[in-house]
Amino acid sequence: MITSFNNSITKLFNIQYPIVQAGMVWTSGWKLASAVSNAGGLGLMGSGSMYPDVLKQHIQKCKAATSKPFGVNIPLIYPDVEKHIQTVIDEEIKIVFTSAGNPKKYTSILKQHGITVVHVVSSSAFALKAEDAGCDAVVAEGFEAGGHNGREETTTMVLIPLVREAVKIPLLAAGGIATGRQMLAAMILGADGVQIGSRFVCSDEASNHASFKQAIIKSKEGDTMLSMKKLIPVRLLKNNFYTMINEAESKGAAKETIAELLGHGRAKKGMLEGDLNDGELEIGEVSALIKNIKPAIEIVDEIWNEFDKAVKNPFSFNQ
Amino acid sequence: MITSFNNSITKLFNIQYPIVQAGMVWTSGWKLASAVSNAGGLGLMGSGSMYPDVLKQHIQKCKAATSKPFGVNIPLIYPDVEKHIQTVIDEEIKIVFTSAGNPKKYTSILKQHGITVVHVVSSSAFALKAEDAGCDAVVAEGFEAGGHNGREETTTMVLIPLVREAVKIPLLAAGGIATGRQMLAAMILGADGVQIGSRFVCSDEASNHASFKQAIIKSKEGDTMLSMKKLIPVRLLKNNFYTMINEAESKGAAKETIAELLGHGRAKKGMLEGDLNDGELEIGEVSALIKNIKPAIEIVDEIWNEFDKAVKNPFSFNQ
Repeated sequence: MITSFNNSITKLFNIQYPIVQAGMVWTSGWKLASAVSNAGGLGLMGSGSMYPDVLKQHIQKCKAATSKPFGVNIPLIYPDVEKHIQTVIDEEIKIVFTSAGNPKKYTSILKQHGITVVHVVSSSAFALKAEDAGCDAVVAEGFEAGGHNGREETTTMVLIPLVREAVKIPLLAAGGIATGRQMLAAMILGADGVQIGSRFVCSDEASNHASFKQAIIKSKEGDTMLSMKKLIPVRLLKNNFYTMINEAESKGAAKETIAELLGHGRAKKGMLEGDLNDGELEIGEVSALIKNIKPAIEIVDEIWNEFDKAVKNPFSFNQ
Repeated sequence: MITSFNNSITKLFNIQYPIVQAGMVWTSGWKLASAVSNAGGLGLMGSGSMYPDVLKQHIQKCKAATSKPFGVNIPLIYPDVEKHIQTVIDEEIKIVFTSAGNPKKYTSILKQHGITVVHVVSSSAFALKAEDAGCDAVVAEGFEAGGHNGREETTTMVLIPLVREAVKIPLLAAGGIATGRQMLAAMILGADGVQIGSRFVCSDEASNHASFKQAIIKSKEGDTMLSMKKLIPVRLLKNNFYTMINEAESKGAAKETIAELLGHGRAKKGMLEGDLNDGELEIGEVSALIKNIKPAIEIVDEIWNEFDKAVKNPFSFNQ
C-alpha cells in the first residue's frame, strides 16, 4: 500500500492523501471536518448553513478536535458573506474554499492574510477566472455532483480534461466520486486530487438527519435529478418536493413561480430535519453506489485502499 | 508501447485494441467502419440512416475494404428493422450492435445464426435485461454521449461502476471518451473497452457533411445540450433548431408540439446536408476536446498511444 502520496495537492494543504471532504450545508460541521482531517484527508466545514457566531463555534471546536490542517467552505452568495470572511481571518483559518460566486473580490483579501484559497467551478472559463483572481487551486465539479451545479451540464469525464488544459494551478475533481477507482479515474483524467461530498454525507460524523442518510443508502440509479434550472440548478434526491417542481417546470412555470414553490428553508427541512417528502435533499448521482454509513476514517481508508489497489492492478477486475 | 492487449473485448471480437467505433447515422458507412477495423479497432456501420438495400451495399463494400472483423449497428426502433435483421443474416455479418429498443426478440434470432450480439444501454437495469436476453456484451452509454440518450441522465463516471456491479458479460463504456486518458479512466471504472462516437465524426472517412465536422472542431464547452426530453432525449450541438426547441420546452410545450417542431429529416438535414442552422447536429460533450479532422487510423493510433503512456505514467502530467 502507498501510505503517502506526494503531489501538488498534498503539498498545498500539507495532508497525507489528496482527498478533500466537500464543505456541505447542514452536513459538514466540526465533527465531520475534524474526523476527515484526522484520517489524513482535508476536512472542510460548510459555512453556508451557519450563522456567523455558529461558524466561530465550529471553528473553535474543530481546532480542539484536530491538530491537522482543515478548512472552511464559504459560498459567496451567502447573505452575510463579509462576516464569514472576517470570521475565518479572525480565527486564523489557513485554508478557505469559496464557491457559488465570483472569486475576484475575496481571494485577494484572504490571500493578504496568508490564507490558501481554492474556488469551486463548473467550467474551464470559470477556472481561468479563478486562476486569474489568484486562487491557489480549483475544484472542477461535474454535472453528476449533488447540490448547486453549473448551467453547461459538463460531466466530470469531460470537464476535468478541459480544465486541466485551461489552467496551471492544482486541480481537484468533484462530481461522481465516492470510491477509490472513481478517484483514480479522475486523476487519470487530469486531476491532482478529489473533492468528495455525497460519500461523506453517509458518515457517522455528518450532522444531517439520520433519515436522510438512510434515504441515500436506499436510493438507486436514476433517483437524483438536476432540478430548478431556471433558478440555480440543484441536484437532489427525487421526492414529493421534486415532483412538484418538475410538474411545474414541465408546464413551463416561470422562474418566479419556481422560487415561490421552493420557498425558504427547504434544504434545512430536508437535510437537517429529515423531512423526506417535502424537504430539499441535495445529493449526487453516486448516491446509487453508497450502501452504508460509516465513521469518516473508514471511508477515507476504504477509498485510499481501493485507489492503491487500482494503481497496482488497473485492469484486475476486467479479466 | 503495448502493441497488443488481451482481454474479454479483444477476444470477443478478435481485434487488436478494445476500441469500438460507434455506429452512427449519416456518419459511419463502409468507409469509416473498414478504416477503423483496418486500424485494429472494431468498425461499425450505422444502419439507422440506411434503406435495406443501401445497408447491403455498404456491407459488401466493407467486406471488400477489410479482412478484419467489423459489425453493424441496428437501432431497434428502425421502421424496417426486420429487413435489417434479415440483411445482416443473409450477408453473414458476425457482429451486431443493437440499440434503442428491447433486445429480447432479436438477440436470440441473431445468436441462432452465430452472430455476436451487443446491446447499448443507459442503465444497469437495461444492462441486466440485455444479459438476460443472451447478449454477449453491453455498451453502457453515459449522459455526456451524443445522439439518443437515456432518461435517468447517469453520467459515465457513475454508470460504469454500476453496470460493472450488475452484469458479468463484457462491458464497453461510451459517452465522454475521445482520448486515451478518457479511455483508461473508463477502464479503471470497470469497462473492458470503449465505444467512441464523436471523435470519429471528425475523421476523414466519416460520411457526414464537412461543415458539420468544422462546427464540431470549433465548438466549445457548453455548446451541446440534451434536448427533446419529452420525446427521446438527444444530445446535440446548439443552433437555431436547438434554440427553437428549447424556447418551446421552456414554455411547457407538449410532446406533440415538440414532435411537430422536430418534423422529419432534421438529422439528415444537419449531419448529412450540412445545414448548421436548422438541422439536428448530434454530437457528444467531448466535441469541446476535438480539435482536428484526421484519418481514422491516426485517431486510433493517437488514442492508443495516449492510453499506453497513461498506463505507464498515470500521474505524469500532475506534477
